[in-house]
Amino acid sequence: MNGPLHGIRVLDVSRILSGPFCTMLLADLGAEVVKVEKPGAGDPARTLGPAVGEDSAYFISVNRGKKSITLDLSVQEGQRLFQRLVPHFDVLVENFVPGTMARFGLDYQRLEKLHPGLVYASISGFGQDGPAAARPALDIIVQAMGGIMSVTGEPGGEPMRPGASLGDSVSGVFTALAVVSALWQRQVSGHGQYIDMSMLDCQVTMLENAFSRYFATGQVPGPIGTRHPSATPFQAFRAKDTNFVIALITDDIATWRRLCQSIGRPDLGNDPRFADNAGRTKHVDFLADVLQEVFRNQPASYWLTRLTEAGIPCGPVNDIKAVIDDPQVKYRGMLTAIPHAFAGTWQVANTPFRLSGSTTGPAGASPRLGEHTRQVLEELLGLSGHDLDSLRSDGVI
Amino acid sequence: MNGPLHGIRVLDVSRILSGPFCTMLLADLGAEVVKVEKPGAGDPARTLGPAVGEDSAYFISVNRGKKSITLDLSVQEGQRLFQRLVPHFDVLVENFVPGTMARFGLDYQRLEKLHPGLVYASISGFGQDGPAAARPALDIIVQAMGGIMSVTGEPGGEPMRPGASLGDSVSGVFTALAVVSALWQRQVSGHGQYIDMSMLDCQVTMLENAFSRYFATGQVPGPIGTRHPSATPFQAFRAKDTNFVIALITDDIATWRRLCQSIGRPDLGNDPRFADNAGRTKHVDFLADVLQEVFRNQPASYWLTRLTEAGIPCGPVNDIKAVIDDPQVKYRGMLTAIPHAFAGTWQVANTPFRLSGSTTGPAGASPRLGEHTRQVLEELLGLSGHDLDSLRSDGVI
Repeated sequence: MNGPLHGIRVLDVSRILSGPFCTMLLADLGAEVVKVEKPGAGDPARTLGPAVGEDSAYFISVNRGKKSITLDLSVQEGQRLFQRLVPHFDVLVENFVPGTMARFGLDYQRLEKLHPGLVYASISGFGQDGPAAARPALDIIVQAMGGIMSVTGEPGGEPMRPGASLGDSVSGVFTALAVVSALWQRQVSGHGQYIDMSMLDCQVTMLENAFSRYFATGQVPGPIGTRHPSATPFQAFRAKDTNFVIALITDDIATWRRLCQSIGRPDLGNDPRFADNAGRTKHVDFLADVLQEVFRNQPASYWLTRLTEAGIPCGPVNDIKAVIDDPQVKYRGMLTAIPHAFAGTWQVANTPFRLSGSTTGPAGASPRLGEHTRQVLEELLGLSGHDLDSLRSDGVI
Repeated sequence: MNGPLHGIRVLDVSRILSGPFCTMLLADLGAEVVKVEKPGAGDPARTLGPAVGEDSAYFISVNRGKKSITLDLSVQEGQRLFQRLVPHFDVLVENFVPGTMARFGLDYQRLEKLHPGLVYASISGFGQDGPAAARPALDIIVQAMGGIMSVTGEPGGEPMRPGASLGDSVSGVFTALAVVSALWQRQVSGHGQYIDMSMLDCQVTMLENAFSRYFATGQVPGPIGTRHPSATPFQAFRAKDTNFVIALITDDIATWRRLCQSIGRPDLGNDPRFADNAGRTKHVDFLADVLQEVFRNQPASYWLTRLTEAGIPCGPVNDIKAVIDDPQVKYRGMLTAIPHAFAGTWQVANTPFRLSGSTTGPAGASPRLGEHTRQVLEELLGLSGHDLDSLRSDGVI
């Protein structure tokens, strides 16, 4: 079995995270990804610590299963070679600041002429147009401007950044979806197209619930700790030893009563104030305090066992080590080993795609800088050993 | 122009958020989505406040551009009708607790026989197998178990939930990508397949950087406020009036010196401790304090102007109203109006997909419960008015 995108070739000139996360997903789904890196330097993520051998742990994980070629896109000879490569690929992904690819003579308008079937995806902080288009952006900039930081944190406290680079990675997933959708349309139209993805746009899309609440109530949502804005109880509680979470969104009184029964407080199940979700949310401050008083008396494992038996959605607040050791995460193989030159093997977060008729997941090690330059340029462009040596001595590859 | 997925038909029996977010994206990309809801009750998200007319703001936004039919899948006649509908669709999406669709006689094994080309996607909290498979899950459960809460929050503080339902929405995006990839493969293989997506798996994939750091250092990452773990300065600062963010990940000394120059502290640019990203990250506590002292003296707009002029990635920490008013968000049309029976029009977060050869975005209003039952069952199954009346009086539709 092959991955569902087997046969698709992706030319990837993206760096750091948003683009590489996108092409990681495409590679996990079976596409062949050729990463184009700057000779000598490579993707800046290679040096974004902590280091494992000559690369960073960060780079290894996001670039598993890709090939690497070096090519200097800032010089004419590099641009010519790149233009010769393009017709061999279905997809191009880049995440330079807007205008950069045009400066290289490698914008969509030009490459489309060489290869009308090309799906060309640009990811940028703010999109290809608009007053902020030319400004550089990195993850926290769009997390801040997109609003999620303003609704994350302690009530009344400072805005907080979610502890993962969601500004990058979320835009990477959206872009991968746009790319495969454009490939689908190419089957019908015969033509590729240009995809203009903005990291900030993606943040706005992900936050939709906060906008809905604002438009419905006129109130600007702020941080509310671990709570859900319109479901109760739906938050973290502190048990005797550690934190755990409960989540209820139902109006089904029987479920609420099972919860109350299971924690030894059947009286709460008969309190009319708490009979439905809207009532519990209205009285959330009081109810949360009452529940917290109950939960502090026993360890989290005690409550999780009782609540699980009662069919109430609940779970531990895992730290990173606990995630790795979690029986369900282990069972699903969500941490998996890829080969690595320095370390033998290296553990990475696995792909979430489980398809009955396809193989998915990391296709191999992350590439050393330029590991496949010779192979790719020989196979696709028919360059000779002599050509390659002279390109190398000129610093083009 | 049509959306890239024009012509794709999606039968959607999902509720609340993860599945509906997935099919919202498919609808934004041009697919026809028919939402199957329980007669009388409908998707529980319809009552998950705040309300707008007879629906919730939440429901309106996520279900824009879909059709709604009512069908009771817990009774045989409803199941038979559903089985007759399936061959008219390319994709089925469901997010019941595992086992539910099998209990209805509507699992993949059975439906595949009726329609080998069907792409059947299940989203569940923990996946279809493993020790936790049968347990119900909602957003915060997988955000807690997947580790992101453990790395979000003040240093040394309690774990924090990012203020958006990323446990749901992220799994929705991943599932949409898996669905379109399986459609792509169907072009080659002629067969659909079963997709088993776990919300917890998706969380693990999104958190990859924290795992990489743990495997590289052996240290369990904890919350570090708004900071980035391996880039400095990359965090929020408090200006005289409000917060703003800066993000630098480069080793380029010229960029760092431009930053220092622009804030009137050229001395920091010449301090060898801060000459590269690794050095700045090593001394982050000291450096962040120094910068904070500088930034508190002027309002955020002052710093943002100067830093932007110097080409340093930076931005405001927008609250929800500020996001809506942000010039770039406005320019890109990321809040957009859809028709709504009660309110005339209703503002929703727009789609992030911008394709040069396709129309994307909300295709219309969210449906009233069962608004399209008659139309869909007449057109696809050829049911008569008499059939429909009798199904309705039996409570099947």
